[in-house]
Amino acid sequence: MHYGHGDDSYRYAKKIVANHSTNIWPKGPSNSLITHLQYKLAGIGSYPECYSESLMDKLAVQQGVDVSSVGVFNGIAEAIYLIAQTYRSRKSLIVCPTFSEYEEATLKFDHHISYVHEHEGVEEAIEDNELVWLCNPNNPTGKIYAKEILIDWIQRFPNVLFVIDEAYMELIKNSESLVSEVSNYNNLIVMQSLTKNFAIPGLRLGVVYASPQKLASLHDFRPPWSVNSLAIEAGKYLIDYPPYNHETLKEYLRLSLELQNDLSKLNGVRVYNTHTGFFLLETPIRSGELKDILVEKYGILVRDASNFRGLGEYHIRVASIGFEQNKKLTVALKEIIDYYE
Amino acid sequence: MHYGHGDDSYRYAKKIVANHSTNIWPKGPSNSLITHLQYKLAGIGSYPECYSESLMDKLAVQQGVDVSSVGVFNGIAEAIYLIAQTYRSRKSLIVCPTFSEYEEATLKFDHHISYVHEHEGVEEAIEDNELVWLCNPNNPTGKIYAKEILIDWIQRFPNVLFVIDEAYMELIKNSESLVSEVSNYNNLIVMQSLTKNFAIPGLRLGVVYASPQKLASLHDFRPPWSVNSLAIEAGKYLIDYPPYNHETLKEYLRLSLELQNDLSKLNGVRVYNTHTGFFLLETPIRSGELKDILVEKYGILVRDASNFRGLGEYHIRVASIGFEQNKKLTVALKEIIDYYE
Repeated sequence: MHYGHGDDSYRYAKKIVANHSTNIWPKGPSNSLITHLQYKLAGIGSYPECYSESLMDKLAVQQGVDVSSVGVFNGIAEAIYLIAQTYRSRKSLIVCPTFSEYEEATLKFDHHISYVHEHEGVEEAIEDNELVWLCNPNNPTGKIYAKEILIDWIQRFPNVLFVIDEAYMELIKNSESLVSEVSNYNNLIVMQSLTKNFAIPGLRLGVVYASPQKLASLHDFRPPWSVNSLAIEAGKYLIDYPPYNHETLKEYLRLSLELQNDLSKLNGVRVYNTHTGFFLLETPIRSGELKDILVEKYGILVRDASNFRGLGEYHIRVASIGFEQNKKLTVALKEIIDYYE
Repeated sequence: MHYGHGDDSYRYAKKIVANHSTNIWPKGPSNSLITHLQYKLAGIGSYPECYSESLMDKLAVQQGVDVSSVGVFNGIAEAIYLIAQTYRSRKSLIVCPTFSEYEEATLKFDHHISYVHEHEGVEEAIEDNELVWLCNPNNPTGKIYAKEILIDWIQRFPNVLFVIDEAYMELIKNSESLVSEVSNYNNLIVMQSLTKNFAIPGLRLGVVYASPQKLASLHDFRPPWSVNSLAIEAGKYLIDYPPYNHETLKEYLRLSLELQNDLSKLNGVRVYNTHTGFFLLETPIRSGELKDILVEKYGILVRDASNFRGLGEYHIRVASIGFEQNKKLTVALKEIIDYYE
């Protein structure tokens, strides 16, 4: 059930030369991080801190929240499962299309799930539910919810728990993060995945910001030492030395807009424009087939998005990863579409 | 609740020069492993395999079992919690004193727990229960259960699920492992912690061997990607290049017997003899106080064992870690005991 995500190059014998299939920071882990971790490798001979306490401290300072409102987890996936488990059998609303793990986790813990499309009456759907799962910016659509809209909902529906996944929040221009609000609202849980913006998905690192009471509930079901020592070291290092700055982030988003523009000119292609580094498109070719051709003929990997609830069999998700690679993706897609016409 | 384990040097300002507090392979991760992982660090920019498939394959070959009987987890702790969760609200028997996480996990998932001391009528206690949690060799006592005794119980109580933790099995002279038996008995789950014998607790790596049906149940509640990519790489490497061989293991166990012998000669000290690299002792000094003195005066860390259910406030657990360090531990304990007399 957990297959069918992006970054699945292991499924192909062909060497992947350009990976547009994930929506993490595209430059990969920095050389200085790798060097830092080389020195920290000797530490794997000791147990990690039980709850990543030293990283919690640093995150609290960085975000300006009390450390009792910070929890560090083995990737956002662990946090999603713990939230679904803590509130088992509740009524959950999932705003879709979106990351499939909200559905996977709530299904496992017997939630009564309903779905609402991000463009069709989300506000009306909230009232009947006990939890709302919402990704901001959303994956795969790139839709960004303004902070004031979410705060309005959080205030007007105090009995609904809002689980806001901000995995991609650091990678947009003007943050609409709700982290600073967790001390004001007891019905708010904010998740951030350090693996996306820090480009370290292999290490597994996710953070939850919530009221101390809410965090204590999540910890109730949590195995100790679930975050490994190198993930803790990487997190602490990257808070001080993030892999991007204002300028490189601006360039990243500019290239994404340029790619969206280039692809929208192709015959039969519909681009869903975003202000994120990744976006959806529909092409005239079934997405599974298109993905295979892109890999086999060009070594280019994209995300077949047809398995997102609410999307169809012609949707793919692509990430902008760099000027040259973006151009090659555009050329490849043009060639394939021309051939099929 | 998860504090009070060994390897807690972070609690002290004093530099620890000898760590006798954990029962992992005492030589630490090998230099060749560290070098190997330095090369693999670049891989943290990609997601790990969802379920550590490549490591599962290697373990299946190594252990001579079908790959469908192998599951790789984020340390044994994740496996213990998933087992407790899968069989929630059942009647669990814990053979103690033992690793406290069986109790922590079964408490969280509403098991009806009973306890039996490892020397007092375990067999009689099994019948009334649905799960039996047993660590072999046991931590902290070092007691080793013969394979034939366990198989006899497994056969005679087919409705009882035996959860056997073999975290330390690789570190004794003649393995009494039950891994090869998981295909014969559907009421058997065997756990092995690669972090103990491979000395990589910072990376988190545990393995469960069980019937495919049992493993599928555990996977039901499990977040994807819970094992990080470096743990997977380390596991694969260490299967081919284990950090010890027949000779070094023999020497490790010989030094432990020597340390047991030396300590048993001290005034008022009772050693619980074992054939493992770690063992329990009772001294005339309260264990918390003794531990603090050993750290502050000698930079030696031991495990205060007073918080193990079934042990008292004078128990400590020590691991044999090397000739010189063992001698220094003996001298230090002698000095402290002489001073207190």
